[in-house]
Amino acid sequence: MSAYTQLERRFCRLANIEGATAILDWDWAVIMPKGGAEARSDQLSELSLIKHEILTDSKLSDLLCEAEEEKGELDDWQIANLREMRHSWSHANAMQPDLVVALNKATSKCEMLWREARETNDFKSFSSGFKPLLDLVREKAKAKSQVLEISFYDVLVDEYDPGFTTNEIDKYFSDLQSFLPSLLHKIMDVQDNQKAPVKPNGPFNLVKQKELSGKLMERIGFDFYCGRLDESHHPFCGGVPGDVRITTKYDKDDFTSSMMAVLHETGHALYESGLPKSWRYQPVGKAPSMSLHESQSLLLEMQVCRSQEFFSFVSPIIKSVFLNSDSKASRIFDQTNLYRLATRVAPGPIRIYADEVTYPLHIMLRYHLEKAMIEGRLEVNDLPDAWEQWMKNLLGVIPKNHGEGCLQDIHWATGDIGYFPSYTLGALIAAQFFEKAERVIKKNKADISSGNFRPLVSWLLKSIHSQGSRYSTQDLVKRVTGCPLDTRAFEVHLKTRYLG
Amino acid sequence: MSAYTQLERRFCRLANIEGATAILDWDWAVIMPKGGAEARSDQLSELSLIKHEILTDSKLSDLLCEAEEEKGELDDWQIANLREMRHSWSHANAMQPDLVVALNKATSKCEMLWREARETNDFKSFSSGFKPLLDLVREKAKAKSQVLEISFYDVLVDEYDPGFTTNEIDKYFSDLQSFLPSLLHKIMDVQDNQKAPVKPNGPFNLVKQKELSGKLMERIGFDFYCGRLDESHHPFCGGVPGDVRITTKYDKDDFTSSMMAVLHETGHALYESGLPKSWRYQPVGKAPSMSLHESQSLLLEMQVCRSQEFFSFVSPIIKSVFLNSDSKASRIFDQTNLYRLATRVAPGPIRIYADEVTYPLHIMLRYHLEKAMIEGRLEVNDLPDAWEQWMKNLLGVIPKNHGEGCLQDIHWATGDIGYFPSYTLGALIAAQFFEKAERVIKKNKADISSGNFRPLVSWLLKSIHSQGSRYSTQDLVKRVTGCPLDTRAFEVHLKTRYLG
Repeated sequence: MSAYTQLERRFCRLANIEGATAILDWDWAVIMPKGGAEARSDQLSELSLIKHEILTDSKLSDLLCEAEEEKGELDDWQIANLREMRHSWSHANAMQPDLVVALNKATSKCEMLWREARETNDFKSFSSGFKPLLDLVREKAKAKSQVLEISFYDVLVDEYDPGFTTNEIDKYFSDLQSFLPSLLHKIMDVQDNQKAPVKPNGPFNLVKQKELSGKLMERIGFDFYCGRLDESHHPFCGGVPGDVRITTKYDKDDFTSSMMAVLHETGHALYESGLPKSWRYQPVGKAPSMSLHESQSLLLEMQVCRSQEFFSFVSPIIKSVFLNSDSKASRIFDQTNLYRLATRVAPGPIRIYADEVTYPLHIMLRYHLEKAMIEGRLEVNDLPDAWEQWMKNLLGVIPKNHGEGCLQDIHWATGDIGYFPSYTLGALIAAQFFEKAERVIKKNKADISSGNFRPLVSWLLKSIHSQGSRYSTQDLVKRVTGCPLDTRAFEVHLKTRYLG
Repeated sequence: MSAYTQLERRFCRLANIEGATAILDWDWAVIMPKGGAEARSDQLSELSLIKHEILTDSKLSDLLCEAEEEKGELDDWQIANLREMRHSWSHANAMQPDLVVALNKATSKCEMLWREARETNDFKSFSSGFKPLLDLVREKAKAKSQVLEISFYDVLVDEYDPGFTTNEIDKYFSDLQSFLPSLLHKIMDVQDNQKAPVKPNGPFNLVKQKELSGKLMERIGFDFYCGRLDESHHPFCGGVPGDVRITTKYDKDDFTSSMMAVLHETGHALYESGLPKSWRYQPVGKAPSMSLHESQSLLLEMQVCRSQEFFSFVSPIIKSVFLNSDSKASRIFDQTNLYRLATRVAPGPIRIYADEVTYPLHIMLRYHLEKAMIEGRLEVNDLPDAWEQWMKNLLGVIPKNHGEGCLQDIHWATGDIGYFPSYTLGALIAAQFFEKAERVIKKNKADISSGNFRPLVSWLLKSIHSQGSRYSTQDLVKRVTGCPLDTRAFEVHLKTRYLG
């Protein structure tokens, strides 16, 4: 058996362990009783240690070298697979097993503290779990930095978005900074001169909200034979291809917040389901980066489902779900009103409720703060003040408490530092992809208006989903759109949508 | 580090993998979409292979020998732990890894086929998955039989009920056969001369049924901080200590079927929760056998919750859940009627609906048939006819179709051959334990009438649950009750309850 084939076998085992982990993570977030946290944390640590042992086995290292020397005999998918294998190998082999276990346990502990602390605005309790976790993440960054020879923060970004570096991210952020603040003011001026949309005034029956979610998911292409919809504190997409699980959070007063979350997660789910089946258990069969993953959720949510065309399609469905035949139609459900609600721009304290114009500012704040913490320039104790300062500067908003301030997100509590840039990279990629889709798909707008998502989803499947990690994120963007990633399409999109 | 301590570390890793497997198994049975079966089957196979690799590592074998030579330095818990470790080692080392994986995959496949086949009475479809699975189980039995030097069937029983052999099981069954048939006739004569109980006539609101379940579980001692109640095709108790998950199946026409299932599973759950915390990740911290586990569910369901005292406690609760203040009290909910319903004896085709008098006959049938299949005396194709023949002989009943015949149970579809005797052994143990409890706990009956389960549950915790696998099942029965296991207490229980 060739070295490459032996590698495939070993990485197939890893994929199974990762799949088991994904389901256990989903369970942790969605249904596990609190008393199960300790045992689950031990189970997850154990699985991460087993993964680490497989990746650091010296035989695997030999096989990688051998296979890389025999590249001539491999096709382009196999070569890409080998590249992804080497990437996983590099990250794993830079770490000692003790650190892997310690990180896992500190993560589980900190996340449990965070859940409570966010509700009670208890920064002290959170920081008692976050300080040791941050120390471990810094230790990880240091260890990987030495081996991979890139900076502390870049090495963390490389876990989520291989190929992207601080240099590039800074460039994109500075490009965004060059037009976002003035654009934001212009948009708010325009919207101030328009009649404000009528806000949803609940209660909206939760069973009906769920019914609406399911209808839209199916219509867009989600297959419930191969997936689920559930509830969790934070909406997310988990599970594995074949069993893709999205979650949402219902607000009884406002059905739109859950609806938009479901549409966002459906974008992730379609991507997972569309990954190449014949490479399902190999590294090349996965998404190349979190930014590309995020591009698929944002393309669906922001580009497609906050468009006038989408609300022309969805308004009658929403009415049919929430209005009784004998009640008079409410203005809330009219397509123009729904569109205005979905495109209302206003700086606020919470990232997940932010509009697409102010969203990048939320990301920049987190990017600067997490980078400063990793580089030792910001102490955990000083985080709340720094957060407030940045919020004031970037968004002109001061959070009322820690819960809507630095405790709002789960990412730091789970040690996911280096992840935040993916959201904005994803928004840029989404705009660039959708611009291309509009050119390629003849009646794209008309299709969306009539609820025919097949042409768009087929194009995404063919051009992006089915490509797995055959190309790097940057290469794929260039192959699909003809241009390297930049902020132009995003800027054009915002100006077109919000300034007409 | 001593050999024994090193063994504890390795078995702690195994316990974590088993815990992860337990949650994934629960998910499979309760919420997994069908499209997830293939990936899940691969994940579960992978975890079983990893377990097998840990147990067959030659270093582990050396450590076991070393620790066994240094037994003098160990306390009795550690010595018992070592005994359980050796038991796991023996079973694992008798098997090749290929067989472990093949068995896992064949099991997943056969269970999925069975789910459909039971609904559609399609024995042919079931047997297409069961034949290869049975071949693999026989291969396993053969391999283990050679190493452990016990017969094909006994080696399978030894997986679920270490220490019990066909000789003993045959003895218990023949003792039961000596009095059950005549007792059954007497009981049916008595009941024929009584007024028949009023049957529940639904619909019973499912939300209220769930509310009733939760109330009773909590009252008996189930802690929802450390567990869940869900729905599945077959009620079961899964999860891990700290996260104990029981399931039930609601019947809208008859609330008693789900209620009794919940009470049964609560018995399992209390046992899991009461296992010794300081040995949670070691073999000695687990139940010594499935029969002991079943004794705890049957003690609660059959001995406690089908007693007159229990219905005196529960009747007002049931009324408060199902009756509106303005509706007139129904005779169904009266304690005497509920008690008569719960102790109605009549031979029927379905094991899980069987009363405690005819239940052992269902087990004997399965015992004889599965033993014949393992020993090569019965072909899969001949199973339906053999089933019908045994049903007619033992219970005087002929199943209407395969769904209520040989396809009714999940056990064979999951390769769990050798498990069925545990049910009847469990019933015998339960009767013997409860007889002792009645002597030890002063006001046991009065406590049950008033819904005070603490004295009984505390006694179970102290005498049985907290003992883990410190003693073998037979030794524990003898220590707790002063007598070796036999059928006497069970016979006395049936005669007292049903003939007065």
